Amino acid sequence: MMVDVVLKEGSVTAPKGFLAGAAKAGIKKAGRYDLAIVYSPTLAVMAGIFTTNKVKAASVLLSQAHLSAGGGQGRGVVFNSGYANACTGEQGKKDAAGMAKATAAALGCGEEEVLVASTGLIGACLPMEKVLAGVTEAAANMSLAGGSLAAQAIMTTDTVPKEIGAEIEVAGHKVTFGAMAKGSGMIHPNMATLMCLVTTDCAIAPELLREALTMAADATFNMVTIDGDTSTNDCLLALANGMAGNPTLRDAGDPGYAAFVAGLTEVCRHLAQRIAKDGEGATKFLTVRVEGAKTERDARLAAKAVAGSSLVKTAIYGEDANWGRIICALGYSGADFDPNIVDMYLGELQVMRQGQGVAFDEAAAKAYLSGDEIVALARFHQGEAAAVAWGCDLTNDYIAVNANYRS
Amino acid sequence: MMVDVVLKEGSVTAPKGFLAGAAKAGIKKAGRYDLAIVYSPTLAVMAGIFTTNKVKAASVLLSQAHLSAGGGQGRGVVFNSGYANACTGEQGKKDAAGMAKATAAALGCGEEEVLVASTGLIGACLPMEKVLAGVTEAAANMSLAGGSLAAQAIMTTDTVPKEIGAEIEVAGHKVTFGAMAKGSGMIHPNMATLMCLVTTDCAIAPELLREALTMAADATFNMVTIDGDTSTNDCLLALANGMAGNPTLRDAGDPGYAAFVAGLTEVCRHLAQRIAKDGEGATKFLTVRVEGAKTERDARLAAKAVAGSSLVKTAIYGEDANWGRIICALGYSGADFDPNIVDMYLGELQVMRQGQGVAFDEAAAKAYLSGDEIVALARFHQGEAAAVAWGCDLTNDYIAVNANYRS
Repeated sequence: MMVDVVLKEGSVTAPKGFLAGAAKAGIKKAGRYDLAIVYSPTLAVMAGIFTTNKVKAASVLLSQAHLSAGGGQGRGVVFNSGYANACTGEQGKKDAAGMAKATAAALGCGEEEVLVASTGLIGACLPMEKVLAGVTEAAANMSLAGGSLAAQAIMTTDTVPKEIGAEIEVAGHKVTFGAMAKGSGMIHPNMATLMCLVTTDCAIAPELLREALTMAADATFNMVTIDGDTSTNDCLLALANGMAGNPTLRDAGDPGYAAFVAGLTEVCRHLAQRIAKDGEGATKFLTVRVEGAKTERDARLAAKAVAGSSLVKTAIYGEDANWGRIICALGYSGADFDPNIVDMYLGELQVMRQGQGVAFDEAAAKAYLSGDEIVALARFHQGEAAAVAWGCDLTNDYIAVNANYRS
Repeated sequence: MMVDVVLKEGSVTAPKGFLAGAAKAGIKKAGRYDLAIVYSPTLAVMAGIFTTNKVKAASVLLSQAHLSAGGGQGRGVVFNSGYANACTGEQGKKDAAGMAKATAAALGCGEEEVLVASTGLIGACLPMEKVLAGVTEAAANMSLAGGSLAAQAIMTTDTVPKEIGAEIEVAGHKVTFGAMAKGSGMIHPNMATLMCLVTTDCAIAPELLREALTMAADATFNMVTIDGDTSTNDCLLALANGMAGNPTLRDAGDPGYAAFVAGLTEVCRHLAQRIAKDGEGATKFLTVRVEGAKTERDARLAAKAVAGSSLVKTAIYGEDANWGRIICALGYSGADFDPNIVDMYLGELQVMRQGQGVAFDEAAAKAYLSGDEIVALARFHQGEAAAVAWGCDLTNDYIAVNANYRS
């Protein structure tokens, strides 16, 4: 089914009934936003997808508990950057709870109606005095304009804030999405390391919101890799407050639900691509498309392996059409395919036919690879399934960014 | 059971009854050895472990077929570097068979008694005229001294040749091992990308040689990672010609078999570590030890994830005691453990106790990390299983080596 989704500039306050506030709390370097609150005064349906890492930040554990205790309903999220509040033991749990409690007090809502998301250095405790002062300040300055400040406040090694809006129609009602994300390193499915919040004024049942979020994440954030490291703090959160006035979506067969999934997926895809483009040290954005796979799982495994290969990434950085590394990564991906019938293209240029290299124009390849958006396509000719993964090149700057992260 | 294994300088011609020859055939840059033959005039028992990559080089497919057709018996291996003979279609298969045939003709043995191993660029066909001339030359100059030349001939981006010898005692008979390996990039279990041949004069049944080789590889080459890329050409081969005169090992309960496994494992461990130390661009050798895991599988998964993490590797390069990245990698490794009771050490310095960071002397940490051999130890306190993985730091030189590999 084709659905109209209109992406447009926007922040988490683009949908009706959302406010946001941010503070320069001094958690990160002075002079940068590092704490934010996003708030729906109207009770909203909430859903979250969290890191699969066995080591989970205190904020992740608290948000999971609040989602469960609140039955998937709530009003706000408090974010901080600078410290991940992971591997911080009992003190970390107290601090995450303290953030939620202070935010709930400032907003005048229940503690369980607040989720917490932290990002930054693993293993050090939050400077709670600064955090609590920041919560007070961010709550006091909430506004529509605060949405874009919130997107700044969640940045760590990101070089640019990442936010987007979108509109769809549900049963004659305009439904709006707003979203922000951070992510630049420690990025790998599942999940891409990230902190992402999608707000919407759609009226939707909690179980459908959860289902839609999972589907959207699988096709987007779970297809981005920067460095193969799955973080302790990943979270993708969604708040839907129903202010659009559409009849509440309760049935997966409802055409309005298809529109909702399409809108949510487009928003997530946009941000997932932005994350790959802003990968630590990245100079090139890599899109890997696998077509003709037996199953979607095969296509996804294959595309992700290529996007995640250090050798592919360095070759892209070097503008070297070393397609042997791509077929090598396809081969170890775990995907089921016949290497002897694979075709492969870099942009429009065919480099492999039926499992073998073809003579190609090296100058044309070099010219194509000198661009900053590279598309590698593999056709398996074994079925109808396809998938796309996104990544970036591996550069000296990735090493520079990460060799002295704590210093 | 403790078994005496004496490692000593040596090459693949260290055991009785092995000869080797090498040639500068012009397959790689002029003036470098790039083709080698290792030969046992006496019929030997052979075993091989090959890449798990779905895309297998023609040499891998041919060697698998010859091992199968020959019932695990044969006399020699022909090696080339420069071209991997992978993704080369029917021509590649003909070329691999041509290498075996020419070698068999030069040695005066059956084609199926010869295995073939190629390494280098994927996707281009072998320059067969040069290869065949090289076979003739290498076969003509076989000698005991040729063992070390063979180790040079299999190098690609390796900066040093890698070979070793060892001695054990089996039922009062001295049994000798010799081995050579190449590997520097595209290194990841299973298998570590490599080409490795172990020769021995032990008398051993084919099925025990296969079993011993698998056990040795699991504890050694399968615990090395440089860059997470599993190649198309990995092979670990073993030839045992029985010239030591020991009663043939036929029973896994035989103490002589335990000595054999210990010797084979020590030889493989030595070479696996040498490969990690010679990782592309590496400046530091990283050993990751996991203790107290529930199962060996958990311990191996955990140790390998840390050794393979780009973020851990860049932190080691930067001499930054960012242990949060280590616990993060343990967490996404797939190993089952309780993050809240993990202890962690960098060298002698404890950095984590019961899942939380401990205050440590940053100057002492920096001093330790400024060394070129770094040991990270995690204790899970959940059982008795342990494992060790080896890797190296991720540096600008890795990128320099790989950005323009084909050029």
